[in-house]
Amino acid sequence: MTKYSIGVDYGTQSGRAVLVEVGTGREVATAVKEYTHGVMDEYLPDGKTKLEHDWALQHPADYLEVLEITIPEVLTKAQVSAEDVIGLGIDFTACTVLPIDKNGTPLCFQPEYSSNPHSYVKLWKHHAAQDEANRLNEIAEERGEKFLSRYGGKISSEWMIPKVWQILNEAPEIYTGADQILEATDWVISQLTGEITRNSCTAGYKAIWHKQDGYPSNEFFKALDPRLENVVEEKLSTKIFPIGAKAGEITEKAAKLTGLKPGTAVAVANVDAHVAVPAVGITEPGKLLMIMGTSTCHILLGEEEKVVPGMCGVVEDGVIPGYMGYEAGQSCVGDHFEWFTENCVPQSYQEEADARGINIHQLLTEKASKLEVGESGLLALDWWNGNRSTLVDADLTGVLLGATLLTKPEEIYRALIEATAFGTRMIVETFRNNGVPVNEVFAAGGIAEKNRMMMQIYADVLNMDIKISASSQTPALGSAMFGAVAAGKDRGGYDTITDAAKDMGRVKDYIYQPIKANADSYQQLFNEYARLYDYFGRGENNVMKTLKKIKKESSLKKTEETVC
Amino acid sequence: MTKYSIGVDYGTQSGRAVLVEVGTGREVATAVKEYTHGVMDEYLPDGKTKLEHDWALQHPADYLEVLEITIPEVLTKAQVSAEDVIGLGIDFTACTVLPIDKNGTPLCFQPEYSSNPHSYVKLWKHHAAQDEANRLNEIAEERGEKFLSRYGGKISSEWMIPKVWQILNEAPEIYTGADQILEATDWVISQLTGEITRNSCTAGYKAIWHKQDGYPSNEFFKALDPRLENVVEEKLSTKIFPIGAKAGEITEKAAKLTGLKPGTAVAVANVDAHVAVPAVGITEPGKLLMIMGTSTCHILLGEEEKVVPGMCGVVEDGVIPGYMGYEAGQSCVGDHFEWFTENCVPQSYQEEADARGINIHQLLTEKASKLEVGESGLLALDWWNGNRSTLVDADLTGVLLGATLLTKPEEIYRALIEATAFGTRMIVETFRNNGVPVNEVFAAGGIAEKNRMMMQIYADVLNMDIKISASSQTPALGSAMFGAVAAGKDRGGYDTITDAAKDMGRVKDYIYQPIKANADSYQQLFNEYARLYDYFGRGENNVMKTLKKIKKESSLKKTEETVC
Repeated sequence: MTKYSIGVDYGTQSGRAVLVEVGTGREVATAVKEYTHGVMDEYLPDGKTKLEHDWALQHPADYLEVLEITIPEVLTKAQVSAEDVIGLGIDFTACTVLPIDKNGTPLCFQPEYSSNPHSYVKLWKHHAAQDEANRLNEIAEERGEKFLSRYGGKISSEWMIPKVWQILNEAPEIYTGADQILEATDWVISQLTGEITRNSCTAGYKAIWHKQDGYPSNEFFKALDPRLENVVEEKLSTKIFPIGAKAGEITEKAAKLTGLKPGTAVAVANVDAHVAVPAVGITEPGKLLMIMGTSTCHILLGEEEKVVPGMCGVVEDGVIPGYMGYEAGQSCVGDHFEWFTENCVPQSYQEEADARGINIHQLLTEKASKLEVGESGLLALDWWNGNRSTLVDADLTGVLLGATLLTKPEEIYRALIEATAFGTRMIVETFRNNGVPVNEVFAAGGIAEKNRMMMQIYADVLNMDIKISASSQTPALGSAMFGAVAAGKDRGGYDTITDAAKDMGRVKDYIYQPIKANADSYQQLFNEYARLYDYFGRGENNVMKTLKKIKKESSLKKTEETVC
Repeated sequence: MTKYSIGVDYGTQSGRAVLVEVGTGREVATAVKEYTHGVMDEYLPDGKTKLEHDWALQHPADYLEVLEITIPEVLTKAQVSAEDVIGLGIDFTACTVLPIDKNGTPLCFQPEYSSNPHSYVKLWKHHAAQDEANRLNEIAEERGEKFLSRYGGKISSEWMIPKVWQILNEAPEIYTGADQILEATDWVISQLTGEITRNSCTAGYKAIWHKQDGYPSNEFFKALDPRLENVVEEKLSTKIFPIGAKAGEITEKAAKLTGLKPGTAVAVANVDAHVAVPAVGITEPGKLLMIMGTSTCHILLGEEEKVVPGMCGVVEDGVIPGYMGYEAGQSCVGDHFEWFTENCVPQSYQEEADARGINIHQLLTEKASKLEVGESGLLALDWWNGNRSTLVDADLTGVLLGATLLTKPEEIYRALIEATAFGTRMIVETFRNNGVPVNEVFAAGGIAEKNRMMMQIYADVLNMDIKISASSQTPALGSAMFGAVAAGKDRGGYDTITDAAKDMGRVKDYIYQPIKANADSYQQLFNEYARLYDYFGRGENNVMKTLKKIKKESSLKKTEETVC
């Protein structure tokens, strides 16, 4: 009898359920629910309470709606009985956090708090805790906290502790009123199973937790703010569940919500990029997965915990049990090309695309495909949104070099694509140079699926084969696989994610292979890229920071003028 | 009785006559004639003989048509009798050269030569003698020819000797058939006066002639090519007339052509940028004139001959008799902004401009004007067309640095404008640092007249006042002034160009003055510009040359593929 598992992938704008056949990984049905409240970055749901610059919130009710609508829908579409669904897994954006009371109810559900922005979910891209992050990094550095090296030397403003600290600073009543502050992904699992099981992935990558060392010390937290001294005991938890474990089973209440049977196995919560790893069949070291979208996230398994400068994090059991999970990232990939098409493509190109009924990316790609490697004479540094790895510096900015009066838009477009490929290569080399092998490359995400030119450029620049995820919903597939592992072999699932990945993880037949002549030319271009990368990125010429400083001063001047 | 003088300005696409009131400089009438043959860069007038890449020719008959049509037209328009016109001066693009026979007739007028491209006028922007220029520079350097230092270390492919050598190499029959090879500006004067009077300006700036040292030695020319050993004696002339002298008088034949009276004084020929100097009232050292168009030409007078690294040339009496005339240049100014609007401005901006009935430059300028200095965070190196001064390196390319996902088109536009201003400041500082003072700045040309934001930026970047030519036809006014000098005081004109400039040279009342706060901010930005300028321009990082080399190889590869 065929068994099924469901994976639910919570993105930035919507949630998506995929019903997957256990044993093959075949995706039988999909359903999507846009979040009713979307991303709240201007007003609270009351339409009156204005949010400050850099805020980004979500409403936890939307997460429950996703379960309520998409799970019944995939069951109906697939004509599969809930009896045959053995497991459920979810993955989420991270670090996306919310405060809850002792009953597990989000504070924003309560009328007394619902007008307070801090009672809502702080989405991953909520950037208003930058001051707290800066202060945290200063203090950690002063104190010589060794955890810094696991995170490339810097804790991001997007992560748990800065966000918690911001709540304390700006809304102490919310901080006090919260029984716990936790990842949304863990909260959703608690709504399915009736108990809170924090996962090791977000704890490790986002909350500075370490399997052996635990969280930073209470002394450290006290040094941040005396009120934070016992934050771990008071608001977080030291009970962390490894990825691949079972969180619990669907409760009666959750069964009513989802249409699943009570007792259906539920996996420990997970994160979108990380859960994609087994979905392409990776369960061992040396295989790098790039999840390519507006930004790119790189996940790599290793045998040992190495200090790799400028990585986002390394977490034991953070991706696949038994291995170190390394994470790196590029903060500007798809976003880069979007910026370019919105700001730099002339009317004549837009008209040509319109006349031919193709979109502007297709037109630019078509034109850029006709260029030889190096033909444009252009070289770019892909820092339009700073550098996440290996320099971990948000103040770095983009460079385009080599322009002439004959430079064409498609040449710049291609140079930007190449720059992101060089950025990836820099990450790969940094791993290798620090004792973490990279032998194979896999890619998932919209760009990997659609842009053949770009993937060929990556293969040529990396001088490695690139395999592409067979699923267009890789994270949801990965979550379903973890659901099948939560069910276990006895109930028709798997004992381990490694077993599940063997059967259900899939890549496409077509493999991008480097073209030797291109790889040789790109080697030359990469040498130049690397030199500029070091020159501008490692302090020899801090012009980008100087420009940012001047920019800041000029903005202040403008504000003053406006006030006068 | 009011007297008049006529200036004729020969541009790239047309010739323009202006009739000017002596004593006031008032421009009474103007007439323009587009060249019948325009710029010939694809075919000869026969419509069959195809020209190679990088060729640019003109037809000398067009120059005579300009005289024939525009001079009578200004007389008629102004209702001025030819009796009251005391002098005529002309200025020209340079180096623009042609071969003539011993009667002064262009070889292209003769049927036996008219199908040979080398019999026509080689326009200043004819770039097909690059191989000859490269070879010339190599040999001059090997031999330690000291003339190189007067020309920033390099002779341009646009100049006289490479063009003459190209004729010899590719069409020895034209070389042999030519009695002389001379500047078009000198040839036109010969058609007016009946005798050839080569001018010191083009001889000095374009033909490697020096007031004391003369031309390079016959040994040098022999080293280039044994057939060139006696090129000076055979095809050029050592009889060079200083700027400001009288070339002769209108002949009977020229009187018939132009409607002027026989005996009207004619000035020695001149060059467009150089003749503009007295037209803004400059007749003494320390005052820099920028002639701003697609590119910018800088002219400055000095007391002594100094070696200023990377300048276009220094010629005694080359601009104003009695002074050293220094020339520098920026190869990409208006061209820069044109490239930007054609390749980098999004449809939405074009639509906004269209809807408001303004052109895209006006829209971008309006938006860019609202930015504070430094607000964009951008910095550019203005090398989209190489660097003419002070690095004299056509292989340098453009850089844009500081881009983010919030960078807007008007910010890039402004950064490009600022980059050209920084480039000018670099030239000003180079003059100063090498003992040639720059105390005042003047500007002429379309950009200086129209773009207030740009001129204010220049004033702020240079931290100096900028005065703007009052004439929108500055070169023609200057030529008319030289015409009045050729006539002399006795005939109602002037004894010297200095006297003429006092009465007739004019600038606008509005002077651009630096705004202190902006100048301070620009000082910081200029420091960063200067550092990048040196880093990329002086060999520390030759990435631009490496990219050009790779580009060349990839073009070869493409050609091979196409052939296969």
